[in-house]
Amino acid sequence: MSTNIEILENTLGYTFKDKQLIIEALTHKSYKQPYDNERLEFLGDAVLDLIVGEYLFTKFKKSDEGNLSKIRASLVNETGFDKLARSLNLGEYIFLSNAEQNNGGREKSSLLSNAFEAVIGAIYLEAGLSRAGSIAIGLIEKNHKEISLDSLFRDFKTTLQELTQARFGITPEYKVMSSRGPDHKKEFEVAVFIEDKEYARASGKSKKIAQQESAKQAVELLKKEK
Amino acid sequence: MSTNIEILENTLGYTFKDKQLIIEALTHKSYKQPYDNERLEFLGDAVLDLIVGEYLFTKFKKSDEGNLSKIRASLVNETGFDKLARSLNLGEYIFLSNAEQNNGGREKSSLLSNAFEAVIGAIYLEAGLSRAGSIAIGLIEKNHKEISLDSLFRDFKTTLQELTQARFGITPEYKVMSSRGPDHKKEFEVAVFIEDKEYARASGKSKKIAQQESAKQAVELLKKEK
Repeated sequence: MSTNIEILENTLGYTFKDKQLIIEALTHKSYKQPYDNERLEFLGDAVLDLIVGEYLFTKFKKSDEGNLSKIRASLVNETGFDKLARSLNLGEYIFLSNAEQNNGGREKSSLLSNAFEAVIGAIYLEAGLSRAGSIAIGLIEKNHKEISLDSLFRDFKTTLQELTQARFGITPEYKVMSSRGPDHKKEFEVAVFIEDKEYARASGKSKKIAQQESAKQAVELLKKEK
Repeated sequence: MSTNIEILENTLGYTFKDKQLIIEALTHKSYKQPYDNERLEFLGDAVLDLIVGEYLFTKFKKSDEGNLSKIRASLVNETGFDKLARSLNLGEYIFLSNAEQNNGGREKSSLLSNAFEAVIGAIYLEAGLSRAGSIAIGLIEKNHKEISLDSLFRDFKTTLQELTQARFGITPEYKVMSSRGPDHKKEFEVAVFIEDKEYARASGKSKKIAQQESAKQAVELLKKEK
């Protein structure tokens, strides 16, 4: 059984009128009740897409829809919501079966992310878009130091470093493999090495952009290897 | 230049306070203005996902999130929005370049669907979710006779028949190829033929389900062939 839901409500800054609604949002399907949080997750997923979409639409008035989509995709995904769920200690409050609990359910990204979506869906149902929006955006702003296209790129290098340190105990090395074109239109080719093995190679208008792109590819590769 | 926007506002049942907003929603990027409808389309896309998601969430209280997603996907897509856009004669009002116009731009599904999303995004920005929702749902209910999982299936057979009649002047033929299993757990295998050529084959717990699934596959195949 979970700890007191009031503590979660305090952390969220929202008190549910209908306690059954928050219980449903916190109920994993393994708990075998006549309800679970999957329908609320379906709703919350769309609520969060709109909340974050509108936030970025307003914040980045000069960004085209391609860049808005990219930034949103970096925030609205399992890893992003898992982070927000953990900031609320959501895992402690989820109702799940003993089997799922023993299987590390309270620590699973998918489970945490889904429960977070369901909680936002529940707030939306009871209090509307604006209230759900201020709670979700508050959490996002607190848990993401900077929200921009630049920070997305920076994140790939940070993510890669975190991954290689955890897995190999070392930091990745970036090497400029070639550069071509006149000064005002240079293209740099950068490769990223981990333990002297090349993991990815990418080109860009600056070394920084090429590094970031190669880091992104290496992260994807390492995640697949795992 | 487009015809009078007032007529569109009458059809929509919504009068814009900020006329620039509806002009932006109707401006294709080919029109070469400092603005176009792509950012509003980004917003409207998320607005429609939530509007239709919540509508289905409320309408189908017993449906799980998998079925809700399927029904939504059948409504929230280019073909679905193209239908709604045409019901508003949206093509007549879109601002586009002469080149795009001569290229049949006013009849393009993608262009119409994107403009529809942008118009809903614009109404949302000015009047909020509830107003955008009642307008969008009104259009959806008027243009889709029945909204349910059953009607989705039926739609595949109808769609296939429309396609084959337009392209080959004939109707598709369904044949039961095999059935197996005990009576209470039978599986039927059905193939769909067009001009005696097998286009797709699928299995299901009833002939109807297998027909519907094979029709779906044949539709996808025919759309690729084109």
